[in-house]
Amino acid sequence: MKLGSLGEDLLLDQIARDLPRADNRKIFAGVGDDCAIVQMADAQNLVVLKTDCVVEGVHFLRKAKALHVGWKAMMRPLSDFAAASAVPRFALITLIAPQKTDVAWIRELYRGLRKSADHFDVSIVGGETSSTPGPIAVSVSVIGFVERNRAASRRGGKPGDALFVTGRLGGAVRQKHLKFVPRIVESRWLTKNFFIHAMMDLSDGLGADLPRLAHASKVGFNIDVENLPVARGADVSAAISEGEDYELLFAISPRNGIHLARAWRREFPKLSLTRIGSLSQKSKSEKRKLPLGYIHFQQPL
Amino acid sequence: MKLGSLGEDLLLDQIARDLPRADNRKIFAGVGDDCAIVQMADAQNLVVLKTDCVVEGVHFLRKAKALHVGWKAMMRPLSDFAAASAVPRFALITLIAPQKTDVAWIRELYRGLRKSADHFDVSIVGGETSSTPGPIAVSVSVIGFVERNRAASRRGGKPGDALFVTGRLGGAVRQKHLKFVPRIVESRWLTKNFFIHAMMDLSDGLGADLPRLAHASKVGFNIDVENLPVARGADVSAAISEGEDYELLFAISPRNGIHLARAWRREFPKLSLTRIGSLSQKSKSEKRKLPLGYIHFQQPL
Repeated sequence: MKLGSLGEDLLLDQIARDLPRADNRKIFAGVGDDCAIVQMADAQNLVVLKTDCVVEGVHFLRKAKALHVGWKAMMRPLSDFAAASAVPRFALITLIAPQKTDVAWIRELYRGLRKSADHFDVSIVGGETSSTPGPIAVSVSVIGFVERNRAASRRGGKPGDALFVTGRLGGAVRQKHLKFVPRIVESRWLTKNFFIHAMMDLSDGLGADLPRLAHASKVGFNIDVENLPVARGADVSAAISEGEDYELLFAISPRNGIHLARAWRREFPKLSLTRIGSLSQKSKSEKRKLPLGYIHFQQPL
Repeated sequence: MKLGSLGEDLLLDQIARDLPRADNRKIFAGVGDDCAIVQMADAQNLVVLKTDCVVEGVHFLRKAKALHVGWKAMMRPLSDFAAASAVPRFALITLIAPQKTDVAWIRELYRGLRKSADHFDVSIVGGETSSTPGPIAVSVSVIGFVERNRAASRRGGKPGDALFVTGRLGGAVRQKHLKFVPRIVESRWLTKNFFIHAMMDLSDGLGADLPRLAHASKVGFNIDVENLPVARGADVSAAISEGEDYELLFAISPRNGIHLARAWRREFPKLSLTRIGSLSQKSKSEKRKLPLGYIHFQQPL
């Protein structure tokens, strides 16, 4: 059946069947109401908000499995929660799809959205659908919280800080980009046990993202290119410029680096953590944007 | 200049210039950070969430002024805040636009988004941009709060309740749909002074929306079609089925109706409030969806 012949009300009915009920004690109004009305976990904490989207032909191809598209659409903003060391709680979905879209495809999409949300105990509490003459787009907004003293951001990196990345970089565009698990558990552990100066998730590739962290922290950086943790089947160039890694990049005081590496191995024996370089004084010759290719990937140019 | 030649980082820089800074005392991280991190006004209240979108060719035409498109994109979810009698606080914007989009158009769009957000003291704290091979789409997510005893929803209407609508219905598709002001002030006044059993905003037309309120409240309804407040230049059919009115529809105990009408005239002398009918016991012959045409617009069929 096509979306156009089902209609929005019935689609929402079908989708809502599998979503948490509005009489859940934390959800006072949800799917099917004008707004979602929720109780936040802990009122003393800061509220964390993130929206992101995936677009057919840009972030996924028509032939991609709907389940994977839903997974990715939810996990992308959740990766930003990892960057902030925040706990996600509720999500809103905006689905923009042509009338001719198969309802079965949309149900699979929502199964992927639910599966990924469930993975981190996130409740989908509302959303909106719209028709379009163009490609399918799925926008996901997530709200959650973070303790005041654990909120991480791109700002706060200091000259001399050690730079670490989780996991291995490159090659994600083949498979991982549709199946990745954001580093929320790891990020929460980091801020519980260490003072993280600055942190972000790598979505556009180290070569594009690291300069953003440096820019936000008003510092420069030096990378030991030979020590980059390159994924199997990828090369250094891919590790720097391909993107879609969804690993964590963070800066920490260098005197904590050794203790961190040891504690990490005990806590996450299957996930590598690599010191890739350090932050430095901002060079006067620094350019606003670095080229993405790894040959140019050093400061000062 | 085209979006494709400017790039996302520079676009965000340009947009961010006019948005509130992350060092605002309520905004700990904002535009340019991975997540927005904010402090909510009053931690005892419930958190209210809403997302909505406008799509080129569906909600606006290419020839529409970008300023108006931005206004509408923000005001649509804010109208849902009116429905919930909630106070909006923060907004996230997702912009999906082709590389060939004029940057000047996008700046006008954001001017409209900011102008409408400012109207209700809402801070735009983050967002995302994506390219697309298709039409422009703007998705806006809003977060705010509502006091526990003032949260309104579609549920809660009782047989015998008086049904009221604000303003006049029909004809909005000509101009009003790009310039309307959601009834947040009126809705906040209503729940401060009266016990509102059920409420929603009219976006798809009374003929589509009233059955949704009745369905959610598990009641039927009777409408006095001759008394509908029809906008100048529109007819009863348009008032019922055109949509985009963004007026409030609400149910209240009939014994409060007369007092309400009098108090309303004092408070909002320029905005009409009309009793259009009442809720009733749910008829067994009730159909799931009513036809939209006004001839069929009565229960039981």
